[in-house]
Amino acid sequence: MTVKFGLLGAGRIGKVHAKAITSNPDARLVAVADAVQSAAEDIAARYGCEVRTIDEIERAVDIDAVVICTPTDTHSDLIERFARAGKAIFCEKPIDLDLGRVKACLKVVKETGATLMVGFNRRFDPHFVAVRAAIDEGKIGKVEMVQITSRDPGAPPVSYIRSSGGILRDMTIHDFDMARFLLGEEPDTVFATASVLVDPEIGEAGDHDSVSVVLTTPSGKHCSISNSRRATYGYDQRIEVHGSKGAVAAENQRPVSIEIATSAGYTRPPLHDFFMTRYTEAYAAEIAAFIAALAGGKPASPSGEDGLRALALAEAAYLSLREGRAVKVAEVLG
Amino acid sequence: MTVKFGLLGAGRIGKVHAKAITSNPDARLVAVADAVQSAAEDIAARYGCEVRTIDEIERAVDIDAVVICTPTDTHSDLIERFARAGKAIFCEKPIDLDLGRVKACLKVVKETGATLMVGFNRRFDPHFVAVRAAIDEGKIGKVEMVQITSRDPGAPPVSYIRSSGGILRDMTIHDFDMARFLLGEEPDTVFATASVLVDPEIGEAGDHDSVSVVLTTPSGKHCSISNSRRATYGYDQRIEVHGSKGAVAAENQRPVSIEIATSAGYTRPPLHDFFMTRYTEAYAAEIAAFIAALAGGKPASPSGEDGLRALALAEAAYLSLREGRAVKVAEVLG
Amino acid sequence: MTVKFGLLGAGRIGKVHAKAITSNPDARLVAVADAVQSAAEDIAARYGCEVRTIDEIERAVDIDAVVICTPTDTHSDLIERFARAGKAIFCEKPIDLDLGRVKACLKVVKETGATLMVGFNRRFDPHFVAVRAAIDEGKIGKVEMVQITSRDPGAPPVSYIRSSGGILRDMTIHDFDMARFLLGEEPDTVFATASVLVDPEIGEAGDHDSVSVVLTTPSGKHCSISNSRRATYGYDQRIEVHGSKGAVAAENQRPVSIEIATSAGYTRPPLHDFFMTRYTEAYAAEIAAFIAALAGGKPASPSGEDGLRALALAEAAYLSLREGRAVKVAEVLG
Amino acid sequence: MTVKFGLLGAGRIGKVHAKAITSNPDARLVAVADAVQSAAEDIAARYGCEVRTIDEIERAVDIDAVVICTPTDTHSDLIERFARAGKAIFCEKPIDLDLGRVKACLKVVKETGATLMVGFNRRFDPHFVAVRAAIDEGKIGKVEMVQITSRDPGAPPVSYIRSSGGILRDMTIHDFDMARFLLGEEPDTVFATASVLVDPEIGEAGDHDSVSVVLTTPSGKHCSISNSRRATYGYDQRIEVHGSKGAVAAENQRPVSIEIATSAGYTRPPLHDFFMTRYTEAYAAEIAAFIAALAGGKPASPSGEDGLRALALAEAAYLSLREGRAVKVAEVLG
Repeated sequence: MTVKFGLLGAGRIGKVHAKAITSNPDARLVAVADAVQSAAEDIAARYGCEVRTIDEIERAVDIDAVVICTPTDTHSDLIERFARAGKAIFCEKPIDLDLGRVKACLKVVKETGATLMVGFNRRFDPHFVAVRAAIDEGKIGKVEMVQITSRDPGAPPVSYIRSSGGILRDMTIHDFDMARFLLGEEPDTVFATASVLVDPEIGEAGDHDSVSVVLTTPSGKHCSISNSRRATYGYDQRIEVHGSKGAVAAENQRPVSIEIATSAGYTRPPLHDFFMTRYTEAYAAEIAAFIAALAGGKPASPSGEDGLRALALAEAAYLSLREGRAVKVAEVLG
Repeated sequence: MTVKFGLLGAGRIGKVHAKAITSNPDARLVAVADAVQSAAEDIAARYGCEVRTIDEIERAVDIDAVVICTPTDTHSDLIERFARAGKAIFCEKPIDLDLGRVKACLKVVKETGATLMVGFNRRFDPHFVAVRAAIDEGKIGKVEMVQITSRDPGAPPVSYIRSSGGILRDMTIHDFDMARFLLGEEPDTVFATASVLVDPEIGEAGDHDSVSVVLTTPSGKHCSISNSRRATYGYDQRIEVHGSKGAVAAENQRPVSIEIATSAGYTRPPLHDFFMTRYTEAYAAEIAAFIAALAGGKPASPSGEDGLRALALAEAAYLSLREGRAVKVAEVLG
Repeated sequence: MTVKFGLLGAGRIGKVHAKAITSNPDARLVAVADAVQSAAEDIAARYGCEVRTIDEIERAVDIDAVVICTPTDTHSDLIERFARAGKAIFCEKPIDLDLGRVKACLKVVKETGATLMVGFNRRFDPHFVAVRAAIDEGKIGKVEMVQITSRDPGAPPVSYIRSSGGILRDMTIHDFDMARFLLGEEPDTVFATASVLVDPEIGEAGDHDSVSVVLTTPSGKHCSISNSRRATYGYDQRIEVHGSKGAVAAENQRPVSIEIATSAGYTRPPLHDFFMTRYTEAYAAEIAAFIAALAGGKPASPSGEDGLRALALAEAAYLSLREGRAVKVAEVLG
Repeated sequence: MTVKFGLLGAGRIGKVHAKAITSNPDARLVAVADAVQSAAEDIAARYGCEVRTIDEIERAVDIDAVVICTPTDTHSDLIERFARAGKAIFCEKPIDLDLGRVKACLKVVKETGATLMVGFNRRFDPHFVAVRAAIDEGKIGKVEMVQITSRDPGAPPVSYIRSSGGILRDMTIHDFDMARFLLGEEPDTVFATASVLVDPEIGEAGDHDSVSVVLTTPSGKHCSISNSRRATYGYDQRIEVHGSKGAVAAENQRPVSIEIATSAGYTRPPLHDFFMTRYTEAYAAEIAAFIAALAGGKPASPSGEDGLRALALAEAAYLSLREGRAVKVAEVLG
């Protein structure tokens, strides 16, 4: 079976997914739509697909599934439209920045019975997959404490930050999802602290650039998250999971692994400097997983519910920031 | 100049200090006292010093300085006695488990003008010293975020735990001191969470075995501390400090650094399994620093004030635990 | 400009090159030929090209270049045919197992002015490329000593070994090329020793499975090569280069870089277990370099001469084995 | 039982052994002798022993054992004298630079039944001990190939080099001993190549500064040794041993293990810059082993025979250098 795709959004991440779809032997990219005609045409030319409008893709009988890479504020509307149109949906995170809107959207998905997968790409990183596999195989016993370090090489433009929903909804949300992926138990309390250490303009825009979060679960597991919009040495992405029998850690990744030794010491090159080079394999693997889920009739994961729960952790974290206390997730999730 | 020492307490840590004193060319161990006569005699025989009572050491004209390694509940009394007796004092941490008692004790020290140094040995670990030196040399720019991982190979006996003052005063206190050593700014708020994951008996004794703490400073710096009474792979002692220009990290230490490669993968041996083997060099260096301070007439560091402030962070952390909120250090320190 | 390719040989390595060609935006795979029709058809179906005979490809006006992945004993004949047919040629190593035959073949290449590139893929491995770049940038000063460790996960079938030309021509030849790539000066003497430690059947087939070689250059540089047909922990591929100012080393590569810590120690997974997974990027990069050379009208490198010189080192090494002495390369190269 | 020591030679290495003896609870340093009176007096003052002449130590009834740290050309005479005087002998390597003289000296040792241990300190390095233990425990199966990298931070003064016996007898000899320690089988052939890459003055003094050696054993095991008098990044001391089931390697050692990450990459400090800091533990452990051998009446190891065999490998290597061929050890050992 070949899954026939429509791609909504031909920007940076759209290109990544176009490549993933066209490299997959079980998929075909049929059409691409974008408000910017030339962007759509570039992808069409490169990968040999058609340029269509979103309306055309919605009505197309030769399209089974869509990949939504449009701006965040269009995600929930598009999910609802394509769910009703009977298409399988892969949507970039987040579903929406508003928790209520996400709930409403997922209600439609549920009613239509549509397949929805949310783009938490890091679950497909081979190193993090191996961490999870080590846990599942019992190598470290029962999970107790998780530490996630996630530091961006640099801050995005302030214009981006203004519409991002804030660092907790934009950046930490990946770590919230990773925490859920690794803890094996839903976190029920969130404590967060955040400050502006990197760039005062970020503060002026009402956001933060440095975040520390502690999640806890009903059974007493902890997860610490450390975020910054600055990492001069590259894209710092590490996780470690401590269990009753041991620990497992995923190290950082760099483009080349050489070491130069001189009188100044031993030097290895900086890490990847961009999420797209760091997570190249993860992006390909997540689309492959979506295709496999469709082909196998299995549930697509991470699901809309996963998208909802990660956002709820961000909401709880914002409440914690405001009130300086540990917040129960139930307070925001209802 | 040779500093002449009296050693109070001939237990495990007393032996470590006896060795450090007698290996130092600028020091001489004159006498040792212990409630257990045979313990004192062992040290006396091994290092060629006398066995005396605490009273005798207090009155001795041939003793310049004492090292206090007696049980915690005797520390503050002994500090006051020897401060009044005009001796320089090195005291194992903590000065006392009660913040008020510590304040009263330090008042006496101040009045007498006595030299008091508190045994936060980790400040003298060569690797952590190198981390601090890298910061001081400006290698990483302005310090922003600190991560401290400190996990014991195993829990102490529950009998010890009962009189330890709790994990935050007994174990985390080292990390509180390390945080102050590295942040370069006093933390003013503490958030702590703790649970019992390792051993239910620890919980029954009213203590915890797993701790996550976030400290923040007035300028917005963060320090995350992760503690556990369990680390099957050895004594896990890591710090990393992130600054505006980069980061510096101290790795774990192991007795031998070999690697065995087989079809099962690449395996390095476990870490040191005990704080005394892990911090061998640190113990020798801290006594050397005390001697150097006495010889040079310079202030001994870490001071009694450092002991007080680390304990205050522990107090604030306990208040945070109880109330589920970020606590201002000023609330406990007054 | 798009380079139009004919692929000769649809076996294991042919498939790798088919993928590299079809993933390259500046190339197109027009046709594939293989004595085994079904193998050619598989590639044709997967990548949308035609199945043709070698004769048809030789005469085809819609083909600019060929990639020769047929059995070794056909290489030199095919190079000559396609050189005369005016095609650019990429040929898997070796050109031939016989030094005289290689010389004769290169004479034809020279006369026809054909472009010939030889498949020493490791020159295109990003890690080794970075090693070479560090040298070229002067990071380690003048190159003095090179150490190459190259150990296969396991021995090939004895049937393969019988027609391989021997370990020095089949396996060590990659290291001879790497030595030339890194030394920056032609080795002029070779000392080799070899034994059978892995599998007696290899010895019965007249070959060895364990090799140590020392190359020296006129100015006194050394290169040590260590080879084995056995590495239980995966495909062991390391180089280190020592120069007047420092050293640069390329570490081993593994599919995932996690580490599991338990009471048994710290364990990382085995290395890649196969040259195709280890050198995936190198294979794609070498075809890209061939295409770029054709597009840019620049010399293709490594050249036929590089193929010749690596084989000459193997010849000299065999003479050294037989006579137990350091052999001048000139003795075999003439 | 306490072993009572006389120390012959109060130079650099004499001081190291004085410290090792006086730190050992089962030993006592009774006397020290040195042609330079002030050097002997320094040690006497620091460690509370007497200054005596060599003659006095030879006749002393209160001395059980001597440690010979005098210049190389006095070693064999002193060994013979003290063997005849009934003292146990620890002698720094080498016994002599002349193979014939060593044989004659060992004959005297044998006749007198004296205990003789030779100072190949690296056998006592905890990391190399752990490598050997891994082999002995069967972790890597049967040993097949050994690689030894030994590079000095810098060349000694040419004046030293002139009387050193040449790099193979002075520096490589440690690696020859390590090869024997690890191979588990006597090497029977030696191939060596050497050049002058570091300092032309070393060449003018008739010596080399860069060496590559391949040893082989009757069963076909290989050992490659790579030496240089230059390593800008510190004292480079690595071994790796490959066996039928896997490999074991000992990594380099550095004074502090921190890592600094900046936009320039990840940098660890240089290695130890001196053999005495690198091998501090090894020097203490070798004296402890000597004392334990005396106390337990067991053979002291490495023995005089070990000293002889390492020197024979150096002799064979020089013959290989001169004649450009693999040399049988039997040719020089007789």
